Amino acid sequence: MQLHVRAELGYAFKPGTQILANIEAARSPDQSILSETLDLGGADPLRDQDPLTGQRTVRAVMEGETTIVYDAVVDNGNRPALPPGACEHAWSELPQACLPFLLPSRFCPSDKFMRFAQREFAGIRDGGAKVHAVLDWIHDHVDYVPGVSTAETTAERTFVDRAGVCRDFSHLGITLVRGLNIPARAVSAYAWQLDPPDFHAVFEVYLDGQWWLVDPTRLAPVEGIVRIASGRDAADIAFLTTSLNCECRKVAVSVEAQAATATA
Amino acid sequence: MQLHVRAELGYAFKPGTQILANIEAARSPDQSILSETLDLGGADPLRDQDPLTGQRTVRAVMEGETTIVYDAVVDNGNRPALPPGACEHAWSELPQACLPFLLPSRFCPSDKFMRFAQREFAGIRDGGAKVHAVLDWIHDHVDYVPGVSTAETTAERTFVDRAGVCRDFSHLGITLVRGLNIPARAVSAYAWQLDPPDFHAVFEVYLDGQWWLVDPTRLAPVEGIVRIASGRDAADIAFLTTSLNCECRKVAVSVEAQAATATA
Amino acid sequence: MQLHVRAELGYAFKPGTQILANIEAARSPDQSILSETLDLGGADPLRDQDPLTGQRTVRAVMEGETTIVYDAVVDNGNRPALPPGACEHAWSELPQACLPFLLPSRFCPSDKFMRFAQREFAGIRDGGAKVHAVLDWIHDHVDYVPGVSTAETTAERTFVDRAGVCRDFSHLGITLVRGLNIPARAVSAYAWQLDPPDFHAVFEVYLDGQWWLVDPTRLAPVEGIVRIASGRDAADIAFLTTSLNCECRKVAVSVEAQAATATA
Amino acid sequence: MQLHVRAELGYAFKPGTQILANIEAARSPDQSILSETLDLGGADPLRDQDPLTGQRTVRAVMEGETTIVYDAVVDNGNRPALPPGACEHAWSELPQACLPFLLPSRFCPSDKFMRFAQREFAGIRDGGAKVHAVLDWIHDHVDYVPGVSTAETTAERTFVDRAGVCRDFSHLGITLVRGLNIPARAVSAYAWQLDPPDFHAVFEVYLDGQWWLVDPTRLAPVEGIVRIASGRDAADIAFLTTSLNCECRKVAVSVEAQAATATA
Repeated sequence: MQLHVRAELGYAFKPGTQILANIEAARSPDQSILSETLDLGGADPLRDQDPLTGQRTVRAVMEGETTIVYDAVVDNGNRPALPPGACEHAWSELPQACLPFLLPSRFCPSDKFMRFAQREFAGIRDGGAKVHAVLDWIHDHVDYVPGVSTAETTAERTFVDRAGVCRDFSHLGITLVRGLNIPARAVSAYAWQLDPPDFHAVFEVYLDGQWWLVDPTRLAPVEGIVRIASGRDAADIAFLTTSLNCECRKVAVSVEAQAATATA
Repeated sequence: MQLHVRAELGYAFKPGTQILANIEAARSPDQSILSETLDLGGADPLRDQDPLTGQRTVRAVMEGETTIVYDAVVDNGNRPALPPGACEHAWSELPQACLPFLLPSRFCPSDKFMRFAQREFAGIRDGGAKVHAVLDWIHDHVDYVPGVSTAETTAERTFVDRAGVCRDFSHLGITLVRGLNIPARAVSAYAWQLDPPDFHAVFEVYLDGQWWLVDPTRLAPVEGIVRIASGRDAADIAFLTTSLNCECRKVAVSVEAQAATATA
Repeated sequence: MQLHVRAELGYAFKPGTQILANIEAARSPDQSILSETLDLGGADPLRDQDPLTGQRTVRAVMEGETTIVYDAVVDNGNRPALPPGACEHAWSELPQACLPFLLPSRFCPSDKFMRFAQREFAGIRDGGAKVHAVLDWIHDHVDYVPGVSTAETTAERTFVDRAGVCRDFSHLGITLVRGLNIPARAVSAYAWQLDPPDFHAVFEVYLDGQWWLVDPTRLAPVEGIVRIASGRDAADIAFLTTSLNCECRKVAVSVEAQAATATA
Repeated sequence: MQLHVRAELGYAFKPGTQILANIEAARSPDQSILSETLDLGGADPLRDQDPLTGQRTVRAVMEGETTIVYDAVVDNGNRPALPPGACEHAWSELPQACLPFLLPSRFCPSDKFMRFAQREFAGIRDGGAKVHAVLDWIHDHVDYVPGVSTAETTAERTFVDRAGVCRDFSHLGITLVRGLNIPARAVSAYAWQLDPPDFHAVFEVYLDGQWWLVDPTRLAPVEGIVRIASGRDAADIAFLTTSLNCECRKVAVSVEAQAATATA
């Protein structure tokens, strides 16, 4: 579908603050950017694109009160639903680039969850069905509750607390899927119909020769996801990383569907 | 220098255990593998090589009591010492591949250390001198004590405990260097003259257009390091990752200098 | 001095919520309560007093939107400053009731800090001077910064972060003092001249046969402290513990000096 | 029953090491010490007894290689099994001394488990039945596996790992019971028929006006328990706490039933 996405981020930066920002829609094979503008409040950006994933990271040096505005129209193509019969790969069959997504990471300590995951989801044959069982488990056992978690909350804590937000749901999902020896990675996104509108955190699993997007919160349809960046967990794909502490003043995100035009 | 390295790893694997092993010397530009053999106790390995770093990861399916043996002769070239005057790069000058090594990771939560690092090492001008100050700080404040840490110990804990082993020293060093906004990555290695012989953990910093190896433990000379793998921290470069729990029976490593031969 | 203290706490309680509240000034030997009223919004309180410390815990069953109001006039007597020459006791000389305050606790994991504390404060002879050195260390190395910590922040984290609020400063102080094998306990208090007014967290050390109040934040004079409760750390002396989650709507505290009257 | 208990603890102490030891059977109302000897390798002990619980803590100053030997004959009376119908008390009905055992503690962070505990064990009426449901849950979901945990493992970690030893089982049990708003405390013990023999960790719950001993590991019969000490968790009742780091050389425990004699 064709989506108009817009993010406005207001910060107070100390002089000389270097930033890495992941806010632009990815130039990945599964979506097309029809138009876009990026305004760093006057700062001059360096824009990179990862050759493999199409993820784009902006670098700049910032100072003072600044509003960063990203505005784009994206055709996010088709987002097929994960089929329960999607088959799991032996590790030896995986592309080399998938291997890091088998490993534990800061917010997704899957090594600690092997016993739980392998016992709780034992007896399920296909990889797709296993992942659906993980998503169902999260839906049944974890409450969506804003305010109980922070930017430092790990999947371990969410598993105990049984509550969190989209970031926490995704971290727990990734952790359990990796505990089943299936590659999983975090995806930051713009999401149509997310209410209230905000950046969204979902994840992907690698089955049957491709990555499949899933949303453990069930708060927004997967077909309305615009991909920004992917990584092992939120530490890799923060929308803003800075060299000096800064103050966040505003985060406003909007995503609107629009009728396809001749440019599509 | 020319080094003969050998590792023997004994494990009891459950049937069908998939493994990722990082035990082969890297085919990186800074060292040459003159000869090598790898024996997985009969299992058939899939051997990959990272196009960027030359790091090699072995994949296989294992079963039962197995001894993995790696034996190689490596010319590890020159390992230049980090000059105190090595200059620091603005983030915008860094190669894209360096950016992940600015970020916090599981064992190196550098985001929590920004205040400490930036205050403790304030006023030092050059990047090389900053890194040397970090190495001196670790040497002065942390004791090398086997047994106080585990495979799950983070830099945060080592900073409090003021004790650890090579892995902990490197994690703390990486964390403090990243807290200074300089890229740092973990390196697993074979190390000549390490006593007792074992796998070694050191790290690298990116300054003045290149990666420089440093050893915060001062237990083995940097010029005797044979590189195995590099990553954000030990989670990325474990010598063995398995799909099922297994029991370790033996880890024996040896590294011997040998006279250069005509093959060198 | 004679102080008028007042706390207003607004909550939304689920029906049948049981509470433990530590908000009344202690009936400890070092202070006198001249007058007081406690209003639980109509609920009927059970009021206990610890025979040893005079600490009072209120129990009640609450429901719905409620404002708890405590209002008292307290003569807090003299609060002598800890003399640097105050001598340290051998463990065998301590009253039995002091022993728990040598041990690590949830927010004060002093076992992890023994190496740091004993090295950093080596060579100081008297217990009083050691505690003053701890207070100076905290003042020199930790910034008072609201918002960087939460109700779950431990001394370990504050030691890394180098920032926190009164609760964090006290937890770190207690931890370091216990790491020096001197009993230390957390004290919740009303504090004159604290700005902005709020509940305050300070601590006490046991030296030379008595407990001495100290304030690592230096934000309010020790002579203006009105003691509420003491315990191993904040987990013991929370102003409110509830059997069901509840929402806090308001915390307003005031402390005013008043001229001594004939009742004093 | 009448039990002969014996503990031999070998340590290498640095000169001047102060110790607190909890190794003597408690002089609690529920058991009688028929005879006992304590040998601290020549050091002169100070022996205390808690007036409320009968728990005894030994203090001494140690030096060098020392073997501590405790040997006693104890009649541990009756250890009634917790009846499923045992009723739960409102907090306002609890003795004041029970209140600390409602609160979270270092190894038992029950505040984090309220949502899980109250959902998982919802709909069970009597306190006794709730506790039995907790014990059954642990038995069904957690494996007894030596070596996966350390002296620092919390209930949070055991809940994730789904494996541990007696200390971990008890910490998880205490945490879940407190999450249900029922007082629970850790108990260190000598245990008849524990195999291999060692110190044992069990816990107690307060229901129907008294404390009831339960053993979540089901490894030894409750009627063979000899109580040593009780506290919030293992931090309170370590068999040895020292002012300086020391090395443990030997821990040997034996517990044998013996025919009742005329002294009983």
